[in-house]
Parts: sequence; structure tokens; C-alpha cells
Amino acid sequence: MLDVTLLGTGGMVPLPGRFLTSLMARWGGKAVLVDCGEGTQVAIRAAGLGFKHIGALCLTHFHADHIAGLPGLLLSIGNAGRTEPLKIIGPRYVGQVVDCLRVIAPQLPFAVEYLEIEGDNSAFALGDLTISAQLVEHRIPCYAYRLDLRRQPKFDVDKARRLNIPVEYWSVLQKGEPVALNGRKIAPSAVLGEPRRGIRLCYATDLRPADSLVEFVRRADLFICEGMYGDPGMLEKAMGYRHCLFSEAAEMAKRAEARELWLTHFSPSMPTPEDYHGVAAAIFPNVFVGKKDATLRFMD
Amino acid sequence: MLDVTLLGTGGMVPLPGRFLTSLMARWGGKAVLVDCGEGTQVAIRAAGLGFKHIGALCLTHFHADHIAGLPGLLLSIGNAGRTEPLKIIGPRYVGQVVDCLRVIAPQLPFAVEYLEIEGDNSAFALGDLTISAQLVEHRIPCYAYRLDLRRQPKFDVDKARRLNIPVEYWSVLQKGEPVALNGRKIAPSAVLGEPRRGIRLCYATDLRPADSLVEFVRRADLFICEGMYGDPGMLEKAMGYRHCLFSEAAEMAKRAEARELWLTHFSPSMPTPEDYHGVAAAIFPNVFVGKKDATLRFMD
Repeated sequence: MLDVTLLGTGGMVPLPGRFLTSLMARWGGKAVLVDCGEGTQVAIRAAGLGFKHIGALCLTHFHADHIAGLPGLLLSIGNAGRTEPLKIIGPRYVGQVVDCLRVIAPQLPFAVEYLEIEGDNSAFALGDLTISAQLVEHRIPCYAYRLDLRRQPKFDVDKARRLNIPVEYWSVLQKGEPVALNGRKIAPSAVLGEPRRGIRLCYATDLRPADSLVEFVRRADLFICEGMYGDPGMLEKAMGYRHCLFSEAAEMAKRAEARELWLTHFSPSMPTPEDYHGVAAAIFPNVFVGKKDATLRFMD
Repeated sequence: MLDVTLLGTGGMVPLPGRFLTSLMARWGGKAVLVDCGEGTQVAIRAAGLGFKHIGALCLTHFHADHIAGLPGLLLSIGNAGRTEPLKIIGPRYVGQVVDCLRVIAPQLPFAVEYLEIEGDNSAFALGDLTISAQLVEHRIPCYAYRLDLRRQPKFDVDKARRLNIPVEYWSVLQKGEPVALNGRKIAPSAVLGEPRRGIRLCYATDLRPADSLVEFVRRADLFICEGMYGDPGMLEKAMGYRHCLFSEAAEMAKRAEARELWLTHFSPSMPTPEDYHGVAAAIFPNVFVGKKDATLRFMD
């Protein structure tokens, strides 16, 4: 139903063997990309994912390690045959910044629609997905993103069979619409189960911990959060550069009652971030030290 | 004395395992980079080369696969501690184009000096190196580059010893300056050998063959030339996109009496360009199908 792939785990600069932090979420033939540093298009190819169905690109902020790959990405999306419009969501002035970068990608076979986040938070609808943004504390304006995908109640096949509903009507009922059958009106509730909570993903990087972020992440199925440094001794540096320790990300995941935490955006000074898994796991056990192409699939 | 490294061999888009075409030449603690597509800074790191001493960046043209890596490169040069000015040489409007891309790299610890190529060809001095540019035929204005490094005549140690010249004066004489020694004036010619030709490198990509390019490359020690396609059957496509076949690059190397030819800028549709080595070698035997980090060292 939805899968989410971490395309890279690096922060600051792209390194041999470590792509910059970026995320792709795919569902129902559509895709959203969050952040696009230098080399993200290579990471997409390396992961075996496509370009054509990327319908929205969310930018956390305008530091180069999160946006420098944008012109190349747009060209690759065009080369893949996209003609439908592409939304680019980002902080204030996103249109002006991207237009500057497009000096080397001026002609595209699709329209680009810019959506500016207003104030501290905004939400944007993309079919059955809602993309929300929340201001975080960094050196320049920067936003965390939350993707909420609505889920229909489960369809009860046994009930539908017992009610002698022909298979060709099942998808109509599944979409929540009633069906008239030989004078008999069948309501969706006759074959659908209980309402279900949606799927909630959060992606937050380049930030200091904050209560507002914890609330934003509340009960996420997956919280992908920066962990610039694993070593607790790096706190002063993290505070200076407005970044997080592993332990701080874990603390937020715990307070937000997230189901799972993935750490990413590792400092180039930290060649083996998995060494610090224990530091985070002591606070929030269901933590994974991010690796390229890590994918979580929500099956239904 | 001078070494030249091919940082990548790809054309059009960066691929997993194939960096975009770019070249670094290093001599006497200085370095020049030619072209900087997305990922070139990663290729520089992967090659174990540094950023700080890059004093000039030459851009062939403004297609993304030759320039999209520029903001990230500038930031990495800054992070490496450079404070001396950096020259960026390129086609008309190079300053405007780079200034647009610098929307995400506005603050650098060094000055950037833009040098626009005027008309069909220009030459720029960079200490003992002369950088020349020559217009080639592509879909947008595009230039080939030639690097000519002057070489001093060889220093004859035996002669210097026979003339009882103290070692501390040797470097003065080697630089071509006379020395006064106990009332005796010693001319550089007393210890220096015959004048020597310099080292000549040419880098030409994104072009159709042309007589003017053959003359520009004349007797180069190393001619690095695009070979977008190896298969002779791709001629029509090559002509349409204004690119070259392996055989056409080899023909130019032969006519120019180059010493050695390296092919690069391979189409993503050609996964094993070395399969076509024979096509080029039949015309110009001293041809090498480029590989990342291929390096040629001129020792003295």
C-alpha cells in the first residue's frame, strides 16, 4: 500500500559510499521525494526506483546538502517521460530559489508548481495523502515533514459473499459508495470493517529538539530523524550547529510515542554510526541506525 | 611535475558506478578542474585528491552534466580552507550562470573571479600554465580546453659541480636567472640544457569533429576527447545530438598527431564502452577507453 525508502544517510557533504539524506515514499503509482542533495538522482537509480511518478518534492531547507541535486533531478524526471505537473513544497521563497537553480534546467516537459509553507506550519493535499510541514529550529528556516496516508476500512470478503454481492461491485463499496442491487440498496458499512487510522511518516532533519516537533510526530508509524552525532560528547558541537545527538532523537521518539525510529544525516566525521546504536536504544528500543535503501512496507 | 586525472567518464546523467566526465590537472601545488557535473566532488574524494589547491575551474558549457556540481564544489573548496581567489573560466555569461547557482552557496571564504571566453577562442595565464579555449560545434556554445605547461630546460648537475657552484644557487639558475659568485657572473645557460617543449593536454567534449579543433589539439601529449558512442551505427544519432563516435575522436587524434588519446563522456546506453576499443584503435592505436581515476604523470 505504501513503501518508504531511505535513499541516503549522509549530512553536510556527499561522500563515496554515503549518499546524502533523502526519502522516497511510494503508494498507488505515485511518489513523493523529501530533500534532494547532490547525488540523490544517482541514489534513486541505485535503489532501482523510478523518476516518472514523482509528483511532489518537499524541501526541508535551502542548505546545499538538501537541494543541490534539484536541477539534475528535474531533468531526469523529464527524461523519464513525465508530463503531469510536479509540486515543489518548501520554505518561503522556494519558487525564487528553485528558479535560480533552474538556470541549467530551464526547459522541462512538465509544469512546476511551487507551494510555499506559510508561517510555522502548513498542510497540502495530494490525493489521499496529506503532507504537513512544521518549523524546526535550525540555522536557517527549516521544516519537518509529515506524510499522512488515509486508509479505507478493511473489506470483508466473507460478508460480501454471504450477501451475494457480485465481485464487480466490490471496488465501489470499498471506495465507500453504496450499491443498488436488484432493488436492494447495499451500504458500504455492510462489507467494510471498522475505520482505521492512517499511516503516518515523519521526516525531520537539521534541527534541535523541540516540544512542537514532538507533538508533530505524535504516534507516527515511522519517525525518520537526524542523528548528526552518536557520541554524547558532541553535544556542544551539535548545539552550536543546530543538530541532534542520537540520544536526543531517541528522546523525542519516546515522548512522541512513535512506533519506530530511523536515524540519519550522519556527520562525515562519523564513519560507522552503527557503533552508537546502543546509545539510542537505551532510550528508545525500536531504533534503527539508517542505511541506504532501507525500506519499510505497509502492506494494506 | 604534472599529473592529470580523469575523474569520471559518464555523459548526460550521473550513474551508479559512473561519475560524470571531469578532469583534474595538478602541478607544483596547484590544480585546475575542467567541468563539474553532479557528483564531481564525490569523485574528487574517491580519487583521494584535495580541494584546497583548485585555483581554476574551466567550464566547457552550461549543460547540467558539466556544471550542476558547482555549488557543492565551491562549498567543499571553502571547507578545505581555501582563502585565495578562484578563477572560473567559461562561455559568455559564465558569471551570471554561476551566480544563479550560488543561490545555495552565497558565502564563501574566497573570492570568485569570472573569466569569460570572448568569441571563438581565448587564452588565460595561470602562472606557468596557459589555459586556452576553442569554440566547438555543439547544441549550445561549448569550448574545448588546452592546458600548456611551460617546462624549464633540464639542470645539468655535473656541470654545476664542475663549475663549483654552491647548491644554494642552483634553484636561481634553474629559474633562468644569472648568479654572481666571487666576482664571477654565471649565466643560466652554463648549467641548463636545451629548451624543451612544454606539456600539452587537451580536453574536448560535447562536440562534432572540426578542423579548428584538430589544429587546436595539434601535437598534444594527451588528447582527452568525448566518444559518446562506440558503435559506428550510431552516427546519425551522434550527429543529431552533436556528439562523436569513437572513430571520429580517433580520426581527429590521428590528424592532430596527438601522442595519446583517452575517450570519455560515454552514453548511458553504452554500459561497456571498452567493447569498442578496437574501433578506435584501428584508426589511432595509442587510444585508451577512459576509466575513472586514470592518471597520467609527466615526471619532469
